[in-house]
Amino acid sequence: MPGTLFIVTAPSGAGKTTLVRALLARDAQVQLSISYTTRDPRPGEQDGREYHFVDVDTFRTLRDRGEFLEWAEVHGNYYATSRVWLKEQIAAGRDTLLEIDWQGAQQVRKAFPDAVGVFILPPSFEELEVRLRGRGTDSDAVISRRLLGARGEMRHVGEFDYVIINNDLQPAIEDMVAVVRAARLRYANQHARHLHYFDFLEQD
Amino acid sequence: MPGTLFIVTAPSGAGKTTLVRALLARDAQVQLSISYTTRDPRPGEQDGREYHFVDVDTFRTLRDRGEFLEWAEVHGNYYATSRVWLKEQIAAGRDTLLEIDWQGAQQVRKAFPDAVGVFILPPSFEELEVRLRGRGTDSDAVISRRLLGARGEMRHVGEFDYVIINNDLQPAIEDMVAVVRAARLRYANQHARHLHYFDFLEQD
Repeated sequence: MPGTLFIVTAPSGAGKTTLVRALLARDAQVQLSISYTTRDPRPGEQDGREYHFVDVDTFRTLRDRGEFLEWAEVHGNYYATSRVWLKEQIAAGRDTLLEIDWQGAQQVRKAFPDAVGVFILPPSFEELEVRLRGRGTDSDAVISRRLLGARGEMRHVGEFDYVIINNDLQPAIEDMVAVVRAARLRYANQHARHLHYFDFLEQD
Repeated sequence: MPGTLFIVTAPSGAGKTTLVRALLARDAQVQLSISYTTRDPRPGEQDGREYHFVDVDTFRTLRDRGEFLEWAEVHGNYYATSRVWLKEQIAAGRDTLLEIDWQGAQQVRKAFPDAVGVFILPPSFEELEVRLRGRGTDSDAVISRRLLGARGEMRHVGEFDYVIINNDLQPAIEDMVAVVRAARLRYANQHARHLHYFDFLEQD
């Protein structure tokens, strides 16, 4: 009874976090992917819920064993997406959503060819600039760098199965919900979930 | 701005007609495919709405020109699905739904490789038998023949992109709506619908 892996990618400012949060509130069958990290848990964080908290030695061992799809060092802490953990979740039938950049998405796609890729776009590039400037806290140089980064991310939209243009929040949420619902109805998923029925239908 | 062609196939008794009607009521962007026929219009029927009504000579001309995807004679009247008409609808951006059997679906798929195939299954083969018997008007021989036909149809479920198991009507309607909504979000459809935006994003 395999679940579906959803890869969700977006440039900063497209509204990904809001959309993903709304999806999780609407569809209790979807869980977020849980990363590994070497940073300390913050108050209220729980091992196996926000992150898999591990020490540096454990992290390196898992990494050197090839258990990670990708890893990165940010401000002196390690972060990683575990291929092994994801495989377990999918095999157990748990639909799992992974927020990741386009480079990470490429790695994930190699290991999970049946993953469903969703790219979230802002209504337009101009609107993205307005949104990024609207925060009002950043210098022009920072905003220019973010826009360049966003543009670089958006060039990879063609590598994704579905594109949601986040113009209005409510329709965009309906889009997310529909993509997830439809993915479960794909032949291979239905077959896996209703094995006896399909075997009976398709036998000679 | 190309639309999407939806192919919907089901054995008799799976509830296809009800589901399709509910989808059309929910999603005004979807139209039914309109067949060609040589039979006379019934009171209230309108040319180009229920059917394209044509005389036998016209029908044969269109057929011999290869304009039809498939055609059949039923009770002395001809019926056909027009490849040319469907191409026009899809090219004009109109999402069009075609109810057809598995053989017809194979023909349509060859001409429209981007068509989205949806197969509707009853909850189980036993339940299908109950439904077909439940009508109470048919002899055992007729019911047996229908069950055999249904089984023959259902063996082709694997040729379809999506499978909806019509156990409860409401979730099955949500499934139909989700499949249609998600199809519009596929990269190729979004690209075609937002050409300037995507060209801008993807240029070098």
